Amino acid sequence: MAKEVKSDIEIALAAEVDPITQVAESIGLNEDALELYGKKKAKLTYETIHSLKDQENGKLVLVTAINPTPAGEGKSTVTVGLGDALKRQGKKTVIALREPSLGPTMGIKGGATGGGYAQVVPMEDINLHFTGDFHAITTANNALSAFIDNHMQQGNDLKIDQRRIVWKRVVDLNDRALRKVVVGLGGPIQGIPREDGFDITVASEIMAIICLATDLEDLKHRLSEIVVGYNYAREPITVGELGYQGALTLLLKDALKPNLVQTLEHTPALVHGGPFANIAHGCNSIQATSTALKLGDYVVTEAGFGADLGAEKFLDIKVPALGKAPDCVVIVATIRALKMHGGVAKTELGAENVEALKAGFANLKKHTESVQKFGIPFVVAINKFITDTEAEVKALEALCDEANIPFSLTEVWEKGGEGGLDLAEKVIGEVEKGGASYKRLYDDASSIEEKLETIVTQIYGGSGVELSPKAQKQITEFKKYGWDRYPICMAKTQYSLSDDPAKLGRPTDFTIHIREFIPKLGAGFIVALTGDVMTMPGLPKKPAALNMDVDEFGNAQGLF
Amino acid sequence: MAKEVKSDIEIALAAEVDPITQVAESIGLNEDALELYGKKKAKLTYETIHSLKDQENGKLVLVTAINPTPAGEGKSTVTVGLGDALKRQGKKTVIALREPSLGPTMGIKGGATGGGYAQVVPMEDINLHFTGDFHAITTANNALSAFIDNHMQQGNDLKIDQRRIVWKRVVDLNDRALRKVVVGLGGPIQGIPREDGFDITVASEIMAIICLATDLEDLKHRLSEIVVGYNYAREPITVGELGYQGALTLLLKDALKPNLVQTLEHTPALVHGGPFANIAHGCNSIQATSTALKLGDYVVTEAGFGADLGAEKFLDIKVPALGKAPDCVVIVATIRALKMHGGVAKTELGAENVEALKAGFANLKKHTESVQKFGIPFVVAINKFITDTEAEVKALEALCDEANIPFSLTEVWEKGGEGGLDLAEKVIGEVEKGGASYKRLYDDASSIEEKLETIVTQIYGGSGVELSPKAQKQITEFKKYGWDRYPICMAKTQYSLSDDPAKLGRPTDFTIHIREFIPKLGAGFIVALTGDVMTMPGLPKKPAALNMDVDEFGNAQGLF
Repeated sequence: MAKEVKSDIEIALAAEVDPITQVAESIGLNEDALELYGKKKAKLTYETIHSLKDQENGKLVLVTAINPTPAGEGKSTVTVGLGDALKRQGKKTVIALREPSLGPTMGIKGGATGGGYAQVVPMEDINLHFTGDFHAITTANNALSAFIDNHMQQGNDLKIDQRRIVWKRVVDLNDRALRKVVVGLGGPIQGIPREDGFDITVASEIMAIICLATDLEDLKHRLSEIVVGYNYAREPITVGELGYQGALTLLLKDALKPNLVQTLEHTPALVHGGPFANIAHGCNSIQATSTALKLGDYVVTEAGFGADLGAEKFLDIKVPALGKAPDCVVIVATIRALKMHGGVAKTELGAENVEALKAGFANLKKHTESVQKFGIPFVVAINKFITDTEAEVKALEALCDEANIPFSLTEVWEKGGEGGLDLAEKVIGEVEKGGASYKRLYDDASSIEEKLETIVTQIYGGSGVELSPKAQKQITEFKKYGWDRYPICMAKTQYSLSDDPAKLGRPTDFTIHIREFIPKLGAGFIVALTGDVMTMPGLPKKPAALNMDVDEFGNAQGLF
Repeated sequence: MAKEVKSDIEIALAAEVDPITQVAESIGLNEDALELYGKKKAKLTYETIHSLKDQENGKLVLVTAINPTPAGEGKSTVTVGLGDALKRQGKKTVIALREPSLGPTMGIKGGATGGGYAQVVPMEDINLHFTGDFHAITTANNALSAFIDNHMQQGNDLKIDQRRIVWKRVVDLNDRALRKVVVGLGGPIQGIPREDGFDITVASEIMAIICLATDLEDLKHRLSEIVVGYNYAREPITVGELGYQGALTLLLKDALKPNLVQTLEHTPALVHGGPFANIAHGCNSIQATSTALKLGDYVVTEAGFGADLGAEKFLDIKVPALGKAPDCVVIVATIRALKMHGGVAKTELGAENVEALKAGFANLKKHTESVQKFGIPFVVAINKFITDTEAEVKALEALCDEANIPFSLTEVWEKGGEGGLDLAEKVIGEVEKGGASYKRLYDDASSIEEKLETIVTQIYGGSGVELSPKAQKQITEFKKYGWDRYPICMAKTQYSLSDDPAKLGRPTDFTIHIREFIPKLGAGFIVALTGDVMTMPGLPKKPAALNMDVDEFGNAQGLF
């Protein structure tokens, strides 16, 4: 029974990785279709993407989850494992994932490229600089900041009010000391002093824009729509008025191209874009998903956090831009997390507790109901952990059967695609039944209040919305500017269906408090902030970076 | 006579660029030796570099210049043109250049990849993100900042004094508003408030380290030696004490590999590293130069600013680490700049002025004398501009002949390698004569004062050195720590041999004022600051970025 458990990086570095040209060939792309980044990574050229335009779309499977614990429930791992399993089932499969952020990689042990035997590789590259997309976004974001400050410094023709600049700088790091800063100190030739702050790059509106842009022209248009701040008359100032949309598009010209890598089982994976699922919509790029749909018969993709956040945004924000709805949704749950939703303290999760599991099941149940409201069939994937007891597994299976919930026990972490064969079979079953009949939850024409009400009552199971005086005032302003036509992107804790991270399970009779709205007109949505939203994480006392190293040939050590 | 003058980007985009695999083949490298970045760029693997170790070195030609005007005298252009000309003369030639910084590219019209028909390509990539080296350096630099602030936040075991942190953050942008900032605001959980500032990435010590490191092990060792600040007892705190040298090396593992591109005439060029020539040593990397020496019979490289800065640092700092001295130096001069040194105002440079030229010639003369002090033969390259009159050219030729200065009129901007054939012939002549007998200007064992005195009197032609009270105090401190054994890296205006940018020509009887020293122990030198040194440029009123754009296939427009 004693089995050596290898770390993710050990498994990844020991893997036989096919030349990326060979992976591309398996989906009909020759070397000319690629821009190689070393032997294991490539970008698809614009010519390739253009040439695929008239191909028919494959089937789309969206992987989401219950409200997660801080450790995450293995959504990326299940996405990768399901992709590998679909391939084993004879389906031409392409996976579409988000790119990891470097900040958390340096901070907390744990990557975003799957785990165990369900990983995308080269994980050490993907988790570090990859093909430079995030660096390009950081650079474009901060170039815009420099252009704004320079505009004010050089005469301020647009009369930008330095107290009302909403465009923040970013770094792709966990750096709490940059959350609130004062810039422009040192006297008249060093700029205009003002309060500012840095977000992590994944929270940049440009990250969301990269993920929603349908091509370079659309990218440029979206960039020009970004509101950077307000003038002394409190009118919005956009990038278009500053005139830098061309330069920013130039800085992003390669970052918009999707990246091709592979799973440990050589399934092609387009890994591209990674906006925060709190301040943004938390899905990978339209470029990657739509290209994957042209290349694969089955495409497996994921959305950030739980179904209340990621899936809702995928279905209400991304799908209209993508022009294709999922044919099936997979909801990932773990027994661990369900026990937490049933009231077990984090430190007690190792012990068997069937009663807590039964209580916590309500959280999963709610998410299955929410997905059905969008008209999409689903399968629950129970992501098995070695600590799960037989009694717990049995109890969860009984609960699902009782509630008529299709489910599958998956062991992809331990067994790769083989551990997801049953899940794949069930997903194929749902897809082939053709039961999906997508309907969006709200119309863009509805008012901001109506949109909020819909999300809160239908998806969160709350009783209503409470707007702060500031939020109320903003709604009046936004109507004046015609901004009420945009969809709403909720910024809410991922741990609870409510806006209180402590309310686990399936809370009822709660109100969602909207503190403030942030117009992200380039991304094309209005962010609604509930409570405090962390847009710049901090580092722990002993950052993961302390264990990292590299050998003389540049091989990563201690990455995870 | 009317000839259409094309812009650099027009020439570069119209050029027939060979597959980089083909360029590599021309110097004996097959595709396995490369990590491709698209079709026109590649990095050399560590395996490739290791495998070349025992090859014999080619001949090394260093290109430097007179004290430049703000527009620059075309040093990179001559470097590229000379490389192409040497190839035309039948020599297996490799060029080793610095990578451009993105900040100035966005700010001021003018790139760093040569000009006209003497360029390295793809210039639009090299001038933007290239292979991500600078982004990796920015990330490593700022990760270290985050680690320092986090260390203080989480108990401050090393008792770092937040008033005495010398490690600054960086962005690869011209952003004056970041010169002086206050970070850590917002209360106890947001970090410790302190004064901070951002430099441009090329001013980062990590940039200098990347350029001086001989391999990954040396890189890690140098990173561990970085002094980040001082504790409350005023003792230095290093990266090694913080324990992050492994993680920083991991972040830089690809950035240390040299990049292979080509000139418009398909001459191989290793473009790698680009430290500021004021705050650092201003030469491309040891990795690139030493690898080029293994691959080419002739290697042409450059050093930043004029010979008083770049060449002095190349010869006193880089050569000992490289283990190979130049066989010939080329000193680039323009008639325009010599007239300025002769007292002509910037606005009057278009008019013929032989007298001013004769007066300004003293500047060139001084640099030829300096180079000879290092025991290296030289050729002056007169970089011809269309505004130069025949009388001016004749006068300059006569002045050179009179002073027994070997020179060549080059027209590489207009004609590519063909315009540098005569220069190449003269360089080959000097190299084949074998007259080089390199001697360093000072010993590491000399005192800081002696080293300064040597540089100022021998190279600048000044009478002596004046130390500020702070600098004097620092010398005492540095001796205590054993830091006086390091070479000196002068930070001085590039426009004058003195520390006063207004003193053009060949000033005499001047003193160099040392304001402060900055220990850069990772780089392995002590920076001596004279006057104000700009480590974060600003943007002009109309930045070049306003004219930049991109077409639907991602082709750059308006880059220069």
